[in-house]
Amino acid sequence: GRDGPASKKLCVEQKMELSYADRAKLPHIHPLASRLLMIMEEKQSNLCVSADVTSSEELLQLADSLGPSICMLKTHADILKVGKLQALAEKHNFLIFEDRKFADIGNTVKHQYEDGLYKISSWSHIVNAHAVPGPGVVKGLSAVGKPLGRGCLLIAQMSSSGSLATGEYTKAVVQMAEEHSDFVLGFICGSKISTRPEFIHMTPGVQMQTGGDVLGQQYTTPEDVLLSKGSDAIIVGRGILEAPDRFKAAELYRKSGWEAYTKRLGQKK
Amino acid sequence: GRDGPASKKLCVEQKMELSYADRAKLPHIHPLASRLLMIMEEKQSNLCVSADVTSSEELLQLADSLGPSICMLKTHADILKVGKLQALAEKHNFLIFEDRKFADIGNTVKHQYEDGLYKISSWSHIVNAHAVPGPGVVKGLSAVGKPLGRGCLLIAQMSSSGSLATGEYTKAVVQMAEEHSDFVLGFICGSKISTRPEFIHMTPGVQMQTGGDVLGQQYTTPEDVLLSKGSDAIIVGRGILEAPDRFKAAELYRKSGWEAYTKRLGQKK
Repeated sequence: GRDGPASKKLCVEQKMELSYADRAKLPHIHPLASRLLMIMEEKQSNLCVSADVTSSEELLQLADSLGPSICMLKTHADILKVGKLQALAEKHNFLIFEDRKFADIGNTVKHQYEDGLYKISSWSHIVNAHAVPGPGVVKGLSAVGKPLGRGCLLIAQMSSSGSLATGEYTKAVVQMAEEHSDFVLGFICGSKISTRPEFIHMTPGVQMQTGGDVLGQQYTTPEDVLLSKGSDAIIVGRGILEAPDRFKAAELYRKSGWEAYTKRLGQKK
Repeated sequence: GRDGPASKKLCVEQKMELSYADRAKLPHIHPLASRLLMIMEEKQSNLCVSADVTSSEELLQLADSLGPSICMLKTHADILKVGKLQALAEKHNFLIFEDRKFADIGNTVKHQYEDGLYKISSWSHIVNAHAVPGPGVVKGLSAVGKPLGRGCLLIAQMSSSGSLATGEYTKAVVQMAEEHSDFVLGFICGSKISTRPEFIHMTPGVQMQTGGDVLGQQYTTPEDVLLSKGSDAIIVGRGILEAPDRFKAAELYRKSGWEAYTKRLGQKK
């Protein structure tokens, strides 16, 4: 018929332009991915702040003051004790993401996730893992986290220069995620690497200006990440933490990320 | 001349057959690698025990009872508090290897290594790192560890099934080690991957019988690791920890590893 090709094209493009809210309602989506997408929609924020500070007090202050602007707070339990963080996550409706980068064999990560001083599985909604040990790392984490309703992001690409997470490596990570989508809810990546709208793409190394640090970190902008790279959320650390007014900076990043997202939706429709 | 090809061959093979003691004296060797090789020679042990136990008391008991049999003790600070371990390492002349598997960007691993609850750099002679973030991970760790005389093993291969640390990835790790040999003293690997005798090859996933666990771990034997794969040292965890008599088991692995090493030296000479 006359409308055949046109409606086909529309159908494909609709698949590409699902809003966060639409994706939250997908039938096979991970419950935590759904919750995150709803938070993003409600708070108009795809901003995850990387809370790389050096005291628990500062972390809690940060969580309380930036809480309204963010969809997620990224922590390093290595650097910090985590205390009243869960209450603040409830108060301001954001998820906690412990950036542990698990990277050992299944039996070991199982213990690291559940036991130890940090007992990460008891307080962190989301953790991440490197795929380099093979699928055992996901199986080990899943054995602990799945019964608790936790989720995992696989590190498919990194923002640091000379990273080995490229090409075939990245493809293998996507495949591993697809095979374990009952626990893996998305990726740490530089750009969109899976067409499945159930997966969340989160991109670190974001600042308002491009550039880098002396230890190989490389920065891109919120607009670039959301609009050109097709990622879903930005992870910002030093861009906010080193700003004279952290709250103002967080709002700047939130608005920038949200505008880029709505622009992307508009372009595709 | 008549002896040309034969002496050439001898020359190459001599390069291959350097003893631990010979390698300890190489001009460009990392001081900690030299110390480790001397310990291995003196104690006739290429056995590193993986102390994956769940209490500090048990760890210290283990370090004291197995100390005489080992060249190195591998710890997981994630699982354990580390207390009087340093005194036991002095008493029994072994090195401490914190199996942290650093795998983040340079700026983050710097903090994880130096700060936090564990202050790993203050007590662990050796740490390991994944190369996936690129050279920044080594630079970040080196900034903390090199002034303290510490050393790092890069994870070039893993014993878990489906590992992505193979082929080009492994080659890139070897290159990264060569470019940072003032801090990187060797590899975690399944087999010999560098011909430079200054580098120490350490192999995990070792048991007396081949086999595996339900989370993807795969085991090889001490003889296979030392004799066929050309690695320098065996890392044994459950093979010793789950034995009815841990000390007897450790001695069994030590002897097996040492015999395989002397056999290799004998074959090449």
